[in-house]
Amino acid sequence: MRFLRYGEIGSEKPGVMDAMGAIRDLSSIIDDFTPDVLQNLPDVDPAGLPLVEGTPRIGVPVAHVGKFVCIGLNYSDHAEEAGMAIPTEPIVFMKATSAIVGPNDPVVLPRGSVKGDWEVELGVVIGKPAKYVSEADALDHVAGYCIAHDVSEREFQIERGGNWTKGKSCDSFGPLGPWLVTPDEISDPQNLDLSLDLNGTRMQTGNTRAMVFSVAQIISYLSQMMSLQPGDVIATGTPPGVGMGMTPPRYLRAGDRLDLSVQGLGRQSQTVLQDSDA
Amino acid sequence: MRFLRYGEIGSEKPGVMDAMGAIRDLSSIIDDFTPDVLQNLPDVDPAGLPLVEGTPRIGVPVAHVGKFVCIGLNYSDHAEEAGMAIPTEPIVFMKATSAIVGPNDPVVLPRGSVKGDWEVELGVVIGKPAKYVSEADALDHVAGYCIAHDVSEREFQIERGGNWTKGKSCDSFGPLGPWLVTPDEISDPQNLDLSLDLNGTRMQTGNTRAMVFSVAQIISYLSQMMSLQPGDVIATGTPPGVGMGMTPPRYLRAGDRLDLSVQGLGRQSQTVLQDSDA
Repeated sequence: MRFLRYGEIGSEKPGVMDAMGAIRDLSSIIDDFTPDVLQNLPDVDPAGLPLVEGTPRIGVPVAHVGKFVCIGLNYSDHAEEAGMAIPTEPIVFMKATSAIVGPNDPVVLPRGSVKGDWEVELGVVIGKPAKYVSEADALDHVAGYCIAHDVSEREFQIERGGNWTKGKSCDSFGPLGPWLVTPDEISDPQNLDLSLDLNGTRMQTGNTRAMVFSVAQIISYLSQMMSLQPGDVIATGTPPGVGMGMTPPRYLRAGDRLDLSVQGLGRQSQTVLQDSDA
Repeated sequence: MRFLRYGEIGSEKPGVMDAMGAIRDLSSIIDDFTPDVLQNLPDVDPAGLPLVEGTPRIGVPVAHVGKFVCIGLNYSDHAEEAGMAIPTEPIVFMKATSAIVGPNDPVVLPRGSVKGDWEVELGVVIGKPAKYVSEADALDHVAGYCIAHDVSEREFQIERGGNWTKGKSCDSFGPLGPWLVTPDEISDPQNLDLSLDLNGTRMQTGNTRAMVFSVAQIISYLSQMMSLQPGDVIATGTPPGVGMGMTPPRYLRAGDRLDLSVQGLGRQSQTVLQDSDA
């Protein structure tokens, strides 16, 4: 199933994609994709549900993200372009959940930002509580997958002291979606192509088989340290081709257009805006 | 006012302390300390509310924490004991919200943890949305203050690669409370004594006047990068005296007892447990 939420910010309704790529209204079956619902997603025939007219805004495919955990430098070739060693354990950081927006909402650079950057990633949505789970059992805790855009401000992240959180948590720096795609549609999460285009030019190309740590390894690893809960999202790292890695670096500017895709998970498309000083 | 939530985990009710130090039931006035209520806390006379009998468990004083932002090395003498430079900008990291527990709930060291440590801190609960706010206006966005215990696992935090999140986010590593104390009761947040005792021996002593960055500076700084929302909690750093800074280091063990206090904000008391391997 390809589940989604559609409508204006704060009043999204639950939906599901049908075989023709049209949205069907799920409101008669569930209220929303809350943590409870993620533990037991409905099994429905989309063709029997009301067709949604027009082209509504697509929202975040999960109603309430409890935490947004990210894995850094998880593609060996991206670690290399960032000038960092390939990690021997997953590098873990958090994005603020207040950074999360819909897949096609604008990316807004905050005041003073001059080093905005892009990172297409495979996002994993947790469906069942996970604590001390083995790698073998880890994928049983997945509700589905989505595109996660780990937008980053490199000056805030790297040059302003301390952890990476500052450069990862700006409002609008976490587009998720368009869909929550259930695991039965993803035959192998470690064989998915990813791409990102900037103004129509391909910048990032990768495949999840190049991950240093697999989705199952990441879930198992995190669950040794913290419980994962339904609705938690994990962004699993980005392949090479970010702006910081170019010579000279190419950072985001107002008016840029970003198009992201992950195989089987649809597309995201964002316009970049910049907050100006008051 | 000293607001609180009392009752078993998941079924807490809202309450308020009266002048005699007894709990009064606020259920007839508000449903809970949700983000909406934090924006407009009730003005009540506790003496007119029903007295709560017995000594119920005290819960987290906020119903829904959106994000839990922490400031590192914010007391110059603690930076020194940690062997770190005094920061020139606030060091920002996140704790998972799944780490949050009531003020007197057990602290549970996860499997394999051998370097658990303590950090008493002043916690700030946001009451009104804050974005690009000035230092002069910052405190207008505070709903109240509480004790925040930033329990830390130093091996996970420092020796396991990458950011600090791993060592800060274990379940039960974020006791908050007992009370949400409104700003009218705290004449100066930059003149509060803090202390922490381990098994009855004083380990940490400090005063918020020794902060490198004040509460107002922290709120203003964070709000330049990310919006702060009602229910967000900021832990503002710890004074010296953590276990890691001792010679030799003294880390937490099952059976340890921790007693924390911040002037005007009450006390926390935790017993340390350890999850054993299955």
